[in-house]
Amino acid sequence: MASDWATFGADLHLELRGTRLRAGLMDALREAVRSGRLAPGTRLPSSRSLAADLGMARNTVADAYAELVAEGWLTARQGSGTRVARRTAPRPPAAAVPPSAGTVRRRPATPVHNLNSGTPDLASFPRADWLKAYRRALTDAPNEAFGYGDPRGRPELRTALAEYLARARGVHARPERIVICAGFVHGLMLIGQVLRARGVRDVAIESYGLDLHDGLLRRAGLGTPVLGFDERGTRTGELAGLDGCGAVLMTAAHQYPLGGALPPDRRAEVVDWARASGGLVLEDDYDGEFRYDRRSVGALQGLDPERVAYLGTASKSLAPGLRLAWMVLPRDLAVEVAEAKGAVGWSSSTPDQLAFAEFLRSGAYDRHVRAMRLRYRRRRDQLVAAVAAHSPETRVSGIAAGLHAVLALPPGTEQATLRAAAWRGLAVQGVNTFRRPTVPPTLDGLVVGYATPPDSGWQGALGALCGVLP
Amino acid sequence: MASDWATFGADLHLELRGTRLRAGLMDALREAVRSGRLAPGTRLPSSRSLAADLGMARNTVADAYAELVAEGWLTARQGSGTRVARRTAPRPPAAAVPPSAGTVRRRPATPVHNLNSGTPDLASFPRADWLKAYRRALTDAPNEAFGYGDPRGRPELRTALAEYLARARGVHARPERIVICAGFVHGLMLIGQVLRARGVRDVAIESYGLDLHDGLLRRAGLGTPVLGFDERGTRTGELAGLDGCGAVLMTAAHQYPLGGALPPDRRAEVVDWARASGGLVLEDDYDGEFRYDRRSVGALQGLDPERVAYLGTASKSLAPGLRLAWMVLPRDLAVEVAEAKGAVGWSSSTPDQLAFAEFLRSGAYDRHVRAMRLRYRRRRDQLVAAVAAHSPETRVSGIAAGLHAVLALPPGTEQATLRAAAWRGLAVQGVNTFRRPTVPPTLDGLVVGYATPPDSGWQGALGALCGVLP
Repeated sequence: MASDWATFGADLHLELRGTRLRAGLMDALREAVRSGRLAPGTRLPSSRSLAADLGMARNTVADAYAELVAEGWLTARQGSGTRVARRTAPRPPAAAVPPSAGTVRRRPATPVHNLNSGTPDLASFPRADWLKAYRRALTDAPNEAFGYGDPRGRPELRTALAEYLARARGVHARPERIVICAGFVHGLMLIGQVLRARGVRDVAIESYGLDLHDGLLRRAGLGTPVLGFDERGTRTGELAGLDGCGAVLMTAAHQYPLGGALPPDRRAEVVDWARASGGLVLEDDYDGEFRYDRRSVGALQGLDPERVAYLGTASKSLAPGLRLAWMVLPRDLAVEVAEAKGAVGWSSSTPDQLAFAEFLRSGAYDRHVRAMRLRYRRRRDQLVAAVAAHSPETRVSGIAAGLHAVLALPPGTEQATLRAAAWRGLAVQGVNTFRRPTVPPTLDGLVVGYATPPDSGWQGALGALCGVLP
Repeated sequence: MASDWATFGADLHLELRGTRLRAGLMDALREAVRSGRLAPGTRLPSSRSLAADLGMARNTVADAYAELVAEGWLTARQGSGTRVARRTAPRPPAAAVPPSAGTVRRRPATPVHNLNSGTPDLASFPRADWLKAYRRALTDAPNEAFGYGDPRGRPELRTALAEYLARARGVHARPERIVICAGFVHGLMLIGQVLRARGVRDVAIESYGLDLHDGLLRRAGLGTPVLGFDERGTRTGELAGLDGCGAVLMTAAHQYPLGGALPPDRRAEVVDWARASGGLVLEDDYDGEFRYDRRSVGALQGLDPERVAYLGTASKSLAPGLRLAWMVLPRDLAVEVAEAKGAVGWSSSTPDQLAFAEFLRSGAYDRHVRAMRLRYRRRRDQLVAAVAAHSPETRVSGIAAGLHAVLALPPGTEQATLRAAAWRGLAVQGVNTFRRPTVPPTLDGLVVGYATPPDSGWQGALGALCGVLP
């Protein structure tokens, strides 16, 4: 049941408005019991757990439970938790059942379990600490911070990031080389525009990655030749043979989505290519903070800050909703990218930038990343253990880092497995979703975003996943 | 002296870091006295006023003053305020004086007084109320709000804006027709892209306006024919003769920068043109909240929501640093603009959007706009009175609304007046700065952004302005 609550919680939110949270929650629970969505005897999640999922104060949930117990909708007994009262819950009238319900194996309209990759556990957003940083930032901000600002972003944030990135990722960062952007895609768009304006024709991409990035580069007027892939990772040696290629987009620390770290000789090879050809490496360091087995694999950028443009983001470490990301750029590129950014007046809000600077400076970011690393590592370990127990032949890879793992499937079974997952209400992606159209299919597997569900939904999602494995 | 403090305050900020505000302020004041920047006997602004300018707590400034009095740098006497102590302040050594200081009328490096238009008084940003809204928003936010969201923006904000815009600006707004953007320029860029993709060739613009907007439309691949201008405003009748023109960009409620409201017959004319030709009116309602003489001139959009795209912003009413603006669009355009926005993943942060929704819902926005309207109106009245006293021949126009006024100058004197202003350290713009290159020069005048300086800098700026008038 736990995992259903995550979905139920998400639905619920659409109905809750304003500050009448407790009343809204009570209404929604009553309606769920009345309609039969919550069957008599169903055990509700703890008030702590539901509060965390819904982003409410625990007392709000506890009060709602208590009132519904008083009203007779729920029962509460020591040791048995809060349950839906065993009364005759009227079923919805037959007419309300959609016609397709007659089909034996109807596909659920919305997935119950979400293991799509690319999103951190949103229920873990550190609201209190972020609010504290925001309050302090807003209080200390000079008035000019509320005006139109430097297109590179606030100096306070660029200074704090320079310190952090040097320490945590081995990035050679100086504040004047940093440009704040509103997400990796925004940064890539700006760099793509500048490269095109410089006369660059092609930007090489990896065999597996996001369509979105490919499409963005193409819309900027750039070609995107694809580098091959072997068991050691992206075949960086092919760069030398790509005539007219001015840059390459890489996920060097943790290939997305296959999960490997680019081996040292290939790291050297890609930088050597850039030096020899005058090319540029675009390093997409989307989840560099989350390394479990040893110290982080340092950023490629440290090898040559004049030939590598580093792109990082708070979307995985904190939350995508903040729309905060950053680029550390070679000197000339920093100037041109800042100009391109200034020309369309698109920046992140300065209070947010100042809050993030304070969040970094105060150590709250380090604490949050540490806590999340532990939590995600625990989930990764549970994933590995559960797969080993349910499907011993299934190999799990890409697990040394990040927020997702790859489960290898027997050749030719990926599509069938994805269909089986959908029948079970499990949203999960296949490896081939990320394969560039020109790359021949050689791998079958699932990309499992184990960071995505809230804690209360994790075990259910894991169970559903194990149910579809060979 | 008061106005110098604003500049001094801005300089000071560059040196203040982190939370050691009091110590930093004391250091900066000591250094200013030591170097002679603050002459003995100079009266300091009140702690309340300096605190407001610097964005500090008043106690921080009062404590710093008290300690410096105790240290002998300052003196404080009832009725005379806080002054720099009359001691022999060492002058900077001769070598430190730059060579150019020998020139008799050296132009100040940075202006002391700022009457450039386009920015509200940043010292009046309602920090406490905004923080309150942010706290509530962050506390109540559902977890999914921290994820990647709807490219149109948060539903809470679109709902709150629909209500507000209908009430305050007569906009026919439904939440599903609203797209949140990160400033007017962002919105215009998106609409420009969509229009170009639809096959629109030209977007007509007014005779006077911002180069930035013209450049943005041109970069989107659009031509920008210019509509004529007469004493009644933009000659909307010329639209019918513009072959291939698919849209027109207008500041109908308060022409920027000349300040007039488009008369009713021309409002009707532009909407009629759009209906007859299938064209689109882009209504730039940048300061619609600030109308002084009567009720706001309602938005043009109310006349035909399917033919007018309304663009509003919090940049003038709250602060540009928030990067919050909105579009209310015809049905088809809303879909296409949301798609264009989603393709580059550029949104405002969701906590900010939720905070702004709460700020609107709670009435804090209405209160702030009311308070600022009174304050700006007082400044406008002081401007009109000061000009009447110092330069009775100078006609002041465009004063019924907004954050700026136009002072007519004798033909051919605009450039000389701007030079005289620069000598006095006054930053102000000429009418011809905003004239499109193809429009013949017929007006001379100053565009006075009376909202720009903080309260402590206003009288000084006004004095400097009067000093350069005929």
